[in-house]
Amino acid sequence: MTRTQLTDTIFLKKSYLCVGLDTDIHRIPKHLLSGVNPVFEFNKRIIDATKDFCVAYKINSAFYEALGLTGWEALEKTVDHIPSTHFKIADAKRGDIGNTSQQYAKAFFETLNFDALTVAPYMGEDSIRPFLEYENKWTIVLGLTSNTGASDFELQKTGEEYLYEKVISTVSRWGTTDNTMFVIGATQADQLEKIRRLAPDHFYLVPGVGAQGGSLKDISEKTMIKDCGILVNVSRNIIYASAKEDFLELAADKAEQYQKEMAGYLQS
Amino acid sequence: MTRTQLTDTIFLKKSYLCVGLDTDIHRIPKHLLSGVNPVFEFNKRIIDATKDFCVAYKINSAFYEALGLTGWEALEKTVDHIPSTHFKIADAKRGDIGNTSQQYAKAFFETLNFDALTVAPYMGEDSIRPFLEYENKWTIVLGLTSNTGASDFELQKTGEEYLYEKVISTVSRWGTTDNTMFVIGATQADQLEKIRRLAPDHFYLVPGVGAQGGSLKDISEKTMIKDCGILVNVSRNIIYASAKEDFLELAADKAEQYQKEMAGYLQS
Repeated sequence: MTRTQLTDTIFLKKSYLCVGLDTDIHRIPKHLLSGVNPVFEFNKRIIDATKDFCVAYKINSAFYEALGLTGWEALEKTVDHIPSTHFKIADAKRGDIGNTSQQYAKAFFETLNFDALTVAPYMGEDSIRPFLEYENKWTIVLGLTSNTGASDFELQKTGEEYLYEKVISTVSRWGTTDNTMFVIGATQADQLEKIRRLAPDHFYLVPGVGAQGGSLKDISEKTMIKDCGILVNVSRNIIYASAKEDFLELAADKAEQYQKEMAGYLQS
Repeated sequence: MTRTQLTDTIFLKKSYLCVGLDTDIHRIPKHLLSGVNPVFEFNKRIIDATKDFCVAYKINSAFYEALGLTGWEALEKTVDHIPSTHFKIADAKRGDIGNTSQQYAKAFFETLNFDALTVAPYMGEDSIRPFLEYENKWTIVLGLTSNTGASDFELQKTGEEYLYEKVISTVSRWGTTDNTMFVIGATQADQLEKIRRLAPDHFYLVPGVGAQGGSLKDISEKTMIKDCGILVNVSRNIIYASAKEDFLELAADKAEQYQKEMAGYLQS
C-alpha cells in the first residue's frame, strides 16, 4: 500500500485507528472455544465488527507462535481475512544479519501478504536494508517504545542525543517517508514534540493508548502532520471490551468511540 | 539444560560446536525436494550426520517462517528430532513489551521445547525478564553482533562505553551465569578480550566463523574460560559443504574438522 492510498483512506474514514489483534486464547469468549481454530474465529468476527472504524490491523506474532502450528495457521487466515482496503501490519519485531533479514522480509511481505513489519534496529543497517527493498511495503522501526524498559537503552545518551533519537535520525536516511515508519509509544508524552521535529514527515505507529495508559489527545495534538502521519494502535481495550457474548457489540462501540475522537483531531 | 549438563557434554565430546540450521530450500540438494517436507528431511539427515561432533544446534527461525505453515512444521519436527543430549537454540531474536515477551517465551520454551532463545535488547528490562523466569532455559541476548551494521548502534558510545558494553553489563545484572548468555560475533576480534573482562563468567554464543570469516582460533584463545564458556556456531560452511549427493559425508567431515580443532583449544 502506498502512502497516498493510506492517507486517502484515513481522510475518507476520518480515522487513523489501528486495531491490534493480540489475540490470547485464554481471553476469548468461551462460546468460541469449540471451533476448529478459535483464535481465527475470534479475529474474523472482530475484524468484521470493527473494520468500518479503523484503517489498519496489527497482528502481534507472539500470540500466534505461542500456539504452534495452529497459531501460525490462525495468523495466515487472519491476514487473508483483512480487507484489502486496510493496512496490514505484522508486529513481529524482527531483524538479523542481511541474509536472514531477507528471509524475514520474504516471510512477511511475500508468503504472508502484510503491508508492513515492525523491525528492531539494534543490529544496524544491513539488518534493515532487506526490508526496504520491497516496493509498496513498509518497514516500521522501533524508535521510542511504550514500555518502562525504554529507559534502559533507548533513553541512554549517545553523545548529545538519546539512542532512540540516533536510531530515528540514522534510519530515516536509509529509507524514505514512503517506506519507513517509526514506533513511538503514546506513553512517552514528554518526548513527542521533539520526536516530531526529528522526523517531521514520517508516519509513526503509536501503541500504548488504552491498556498502557497513553493519551490519544496528547499524541494527536503533538505529532499529527498535514497528511495525518500517525496510526494509533489500540489492542486490549477494543478486542477484550467484553469476555461475554456481547464482545462484538462492545468492541465495535469502543472502536467507534476512538474513531469519533480521531475525526475531531483530523478536522482541527 | 543446566550449565553443568552443557559443560559436561562439551568436555566429554571435546567440542563446543553448534551447527546452525539456516536451511534455505533453494540450497538443499535437489534429490531431497520431492519429499513431503524437504527442509525437515534435509535437517534430519544433517543432524544424524553431525551429532557426534557438536553439542548444540541453532535453528534460524527466519528460514522456516519464509515457507509459511510448511516451514513452521519443519521447525517443529526439527527441534523434536534433535537428541536430548544436545543444546537446542532458537535463533529468533525476539523481544517486545512484557506481556508479549511472555508469549514468545511460551512459544519457544513450552510449545517448542528449545533450551535457549536469542533475544534483542533494545526494549530493555521488561522485554527480557519473562524469558529469565523459566528454569533451566537460557536467554541469549545480543551483545556485539558479527555483521557490519554492528557499527551503527552497538558500537556507538553511551557515556564512556559502547552501547553493546552497556547492554552486556546491564543485562548480566538481570539474569545469572546459569540462565543468560550473550551473542558475540567472531568477526569482532579486536573487542574479544575486553568483552571477556566485561562478563567473565558468562557463556557466549559465537556466530561468524565460516562464511562470515571469523577465526575459531582467535575466539577460542581470547574468550575461553575454565568451563569453556563458549559455543561457536557454524552454519553454511557445514550444512552446505556440498549441494550434491555427498552432502552428508562432507558436512560430517567439516563438523569433525571443527571438533578436532576445538579439542586442541580445550586441552591447552
